[in-house]
Amino acid sequence: MADYDYGGDAEQAELKKLAADVDANPDEFEVWEKLVAAVEGQEGGLTRNSSSQAITLARETYDRFLAKFPLFFGYWKKYADMEMKVAGTEAAEMVYERGVASITSSVDLWANYCAFKVETSHDSDVIRDLFERAANSVGLDFLAHPFWDKCLEFEERMDAHDKIFAILSRVIHIPMHQYARYFERYQQMSMQRPLSELAEPEDLARFRKEVEMAGPQGRSDFELERDLRTRIAASHHEIFQVTQTETTKRWTYEQEIKRPYFHVTELDDAQIANWRKYLDFEEHEGSYQRVAFLYERCLVTAARYEEFWLRYARWMLAQKDKQQEVRNIYERASCLHVPIAEPAIRLQYARFEEMSGRVDVAEAIHEEILSVLPSHIETLKSWGNLIRRQHGVDAAVAHYCNFIDSPDCDTPTKAALVVEWARLVWKVKGSAEEARAIMQKQQHWYLDSRPFWSAYLLFELDQPTGAATEAEHHQRIKAIHDEIQQKSRLHSSTIKELSHIYMEYLLERGTEDAAKEYMRLDQEVNGPASVSTIRKLKDEDKDMSANGQLAPLRYTG
Amino acid sequence: MADYDYGGDAEQAELKKLAADVDANPDEFEVWEKLVAAVEGQEGGLTRNSSSQAITLARETYDRFLAKFPLFFGYWKKYADMEMKVAGTEAAEMVYERGVASITSSVDLWANYCAFKVETSHDSDVIRDLFERAANSVGLDFLAHPFWDKCLEFEERMDAHDKIFAILSRVIHIPMHQYARYFERYQQMSMQRPLSELAEPEDLARFRKEVEMAGPQGRSDFELERDLRTRIAASHHEIFQVTQTETTKRWTYEQEIKRPYFHVTELDDAQIANWRKYLDFEEHEGSYQRVAFLYERCLVTAARYEEFWLRYARWMLAQKDKQQEVRNIYERASCLHVPIAEPAIRLQYARFEEMSGRVDVAEAIHEEILSVLPSHIETLKSWGNLIRRQHGVDAAVAHYCNFIDSPDCDTPTKAALVVEWARLVWKVKGSAEEARAIMQKQQHWYLDSRPFWSAYLLFELDQPTGAATEAEHHQRIKAIHDEIQQKSRLHSSTIKELSHIYMEYLLERGTEDAAKEYMRLDQEVNGPASVSTIRKLKDEDKDMSANGQLAPLRYTG
Repeated sequence: MADYDYGGDAEQAELKKLAADVDANPDEFEVWEKLVAAVEGQEGGLTRNSSSQAITLARETYDRFLAKFPLFFGYWKKYADMEMKVAGTEAAEMVYERGVASITSSVDLWANYCAFKVETSHDSDVIRDLFERAANSVGLDFLAHPFWDKCLEFEERMDAHDKIFAILSRVIHIPMHQYARYFERYQQMSMQRPLSELAEPEDLARFRKEVEMAGPQGRSDFELERDLRTRIAASHHEIFQVTQTETTKRWTYEQEIKRPYFHVTELDDAQIANWRKYLDFEEHEGSYQRVAFLYERCLVTAARYEEFWLRYARWMLAQKDKQQEVRNIYERASCLHVPIAEPAIRLQYARFEEMSGRVDVAEAIHEEILSVLPSHIETLKSWGNLIRRQHGVDAAVAHYCNFIDSPDCDTPTKAALVVEWARLVWKVKGSAEEARAIMQKQQHWYLDSRPFWSAYLLFELDQPTGAATEAEHHQRIKAIHDEIQQKSRLHSSTIKELSHIYMEYLLERGTEDAAKEYMRLDQEVNGPASVSTIRKLKDEDKDMSANGQLAPLRYTG
Repeated sequence: MADYDYGGDAEQAELKKLAADVDANPDEFEVWEKLVAAVEGQEGGLTRNSSSQAITLARETYDRFLAKFPLFFGYWKKYADMEMKVAGTEAAEMVYERGVASITSSVDLWANYCAFKVETSHDSDVIRDLFERAANSVGLDFLAHPFWDKCLEFEERMDAHDKIFAILSRVIHIPMHQYARYFERYQQMSMQRPLSELAEPEDLARFRKEVEMAGPQGRSDFELERDLRTRIAASHHEIFQVTQTETTKRWTYEQEIKRPYFHVTELDDAQIANWRKYLDFEEHEGSYQRVAFLYERCLVTAARYEEFWLRYARWMLAQKDKQQEVRNIYERASCLHVPIAEPAIRLQYARFEEMSGRVDVAEAIHEEILSVLPSHIETLKSWGNLIRRQHGVDAAVAHYCNFIDSPDCDTPTKAALVVEWARLVWKVKGSAEEARAIMQKQQHWYLDSRPFWSAYLLFELDQPTGAATEAEHHQRIKAIHDEIQQKSRLHSSTIKELSHIYMEYLLERGTEDAAKEYMRLDQEVNGPASVSTIRKLKDEDKDMSANGQLAPLRYTG
């Protein structure tokens, strides 16, 4: 945007500055907020007559901002209002459509959209269609009353009492904060409504029979209808009681929700715990619609928490025939909300695509993560395993060698990849000799890599021996331990740790004289400084061994 | 003692009560304290004329008390005083000898002993011999002045000025709190002493030459001697300055020692840290006598800390030809001071004896630990490994099977032993088949043992496969995982953990369809309660899996 030609010198300077701020801190909501306010205020406030440059800049800004923060429903509203001013209904409507697509579960945004529609359209069917879409998106919200009120208000204007009553008979089944108010109104209205609207035909018939059997013979039609209406009112009261119970059940969780909207700041633990409990509860209740809607609400405020995305996807996968829904969840989480610095959900997404037979997509996902985090070991391993599963061991080996030779990978990562390579050759191809050759050939590159040396040591320790080769086996392991103690540039604490593993080996596999070697090492490794022989590295020394646990060639994750 | 016949009804009742307290809490110093006081006070205070029963009881009490707390030097003194009263010199002397044998580094006890000797013996040579023994035991103590003063005081009584001067010329070399006082006295006395006592003959000759060369010709003998004495005084001053520097170096550590004596209560971290630093320092200074003596002092106050015993033994082992000294350290630590509930040092002691070729002693040590802690896994494994090293695999297997069948071992321990047994067969004999057979045959006994099932799973995971047997390999591991999920009685968190290992395996070793199985498990294992299939165990349920980490069949210590 820096090269854009702004109108008005002072204003232009200000805009340039704010735009620069945004480019410098694209993740900071506050700087965006300032910029948006500034572009809206251009040329004394944008109107139909503003310069096309100013308008384009405003649109461009809103688009970039909302692409980054699609969950700020308030800004969709402001954007739509602006379009209304500068370009009119259609443009505004387009913005509303984009808005509700980005944050389907926002009661406010839908309510705004509907109000907008009521004011700008004269075709009541079109308006009702929109209300219906809105009802399907947010009608179940515990705080949906602003929307339902808009709905009723419109039909009042239309003077369509049947429609009003129809809406109420729908709403009284929904557990909501304001359930009582709607029921009261429904009850009053029902006195004026024809019987046919008060219950389903078959229920009506049943009630009629009941009343006829119950009461005295020879009542007038008027008396019969009166008795029938009393019976129906009773059935309505049952509905009320059910809705009341359902509402109370959810009240405890709802009142704990301190922040129903999205914000860049973190949620506190109490909030997160409450969402977990609420989801458990709703899942236990078992209505697919309600659970799915609750996840959508949760993922507005907790959009940055992969925990809830993963949970949503896992829950959805357990439902029947919801593959596409699962995919959407992973896509939204990966592409929109969870920062790429936390690749776990993307790797899970890749496995899902692999499972669905879309291997190329799975590979593309890995590629994308690495384009941002070129040395992300977990991703490189995950990709390598994907390749092995789908194209075989040799392809996987090629994959690792390729990254081991690449300049984009840092040395600690390469060390881990060599370990993976050797593991493949050993565990999958079943050739310990070949694996050994790899470790031996590579070792001099990774003298300061703890994962490499622990894996190398544990690899040899893992080799079983018949008594025949016991001595040879011991020589091999001893040789590695000597390298670690003398050649490696590992931190002394790491050397100590690895020596302990070797000493353990001496006790568990060594022969008659093992105790001698053990006690000598015990003195050298565990003895006080005056008798210990482990080189003490200064902390300044480059030391990769700090990073990463012992990384044996095995499945301890 | 309960059946003992006490004198005096009230007194007898009181003694009975205190004796019972001691039998109930043999580790509590305070109850012993009361009992000792009571037996001393028998029959209005023990004397030569007390009943033999009372005297025997008193001795018996002291003996039992000091066998348990040999480091309370004060009570050796009280014991000796009592013997003096009831049985006389020889008896008292015996007690002192036992005392200084039990706590060689106690300045006070040695000082008391010497004082006692001075009063009770008329043979000054015998007395001087004792002073010499004391000097070798505690003469180097930073606070040894009470002893040295006793020493000088005696020679003053003897009017043996040459002896006094000899003692002083020895003491001025020792870094001590009161070094200055002794040097002052030495300096004054040296004026009256003949030249021959003021320096070693060869130094004296050298000084004489220097003086003759330096000064003017034709001086009288008197003048010559005066110049010579000045030169010698200078050499004494050099000694003073060395001692002063050495003293200052140690001052920082000495002033941090808040508790130089033994007590049953714990040392605070600052004290322990100070001892570590002090030992580092003295070891760096490099005088064997001083280091050994500092360890002795440290191990009076820190007698219950295996850390210092182990360190002492490791340091000693690094010195030339000190095998027997090392053995004594391990013996004292194991037999007297470190509670058997912490067997680490005893196991180390056993390895030392094995190293020294005394296998039978090493085995006896294990046996002793198990007589107190029959289910101590580490000891059972250590013993098993000892047997294997010395008598071969089959003997070791027999050892494990023997304990697996024994009624003294609890089930968690047996589970661990089965794992060891299988490990031996697999790793040492090199027969995976036989190991597999053992695990399969035993599994139904250990349905709630986490170490067993994790080891079993990791055992199969560790088997390498050429592509040929991949499917078979997968079936084996899947079977174990199914057992874990369906048959085992493990805690759900453990099942989850083991399932994760299996899922990791699916990614690293599974074939094309692995992702399907992985995603299904991911939903069942990691999904919310509503879609998870892992049985949730109530916390009351018996669950061994809490104890102990994952215990793979390998050398991760």
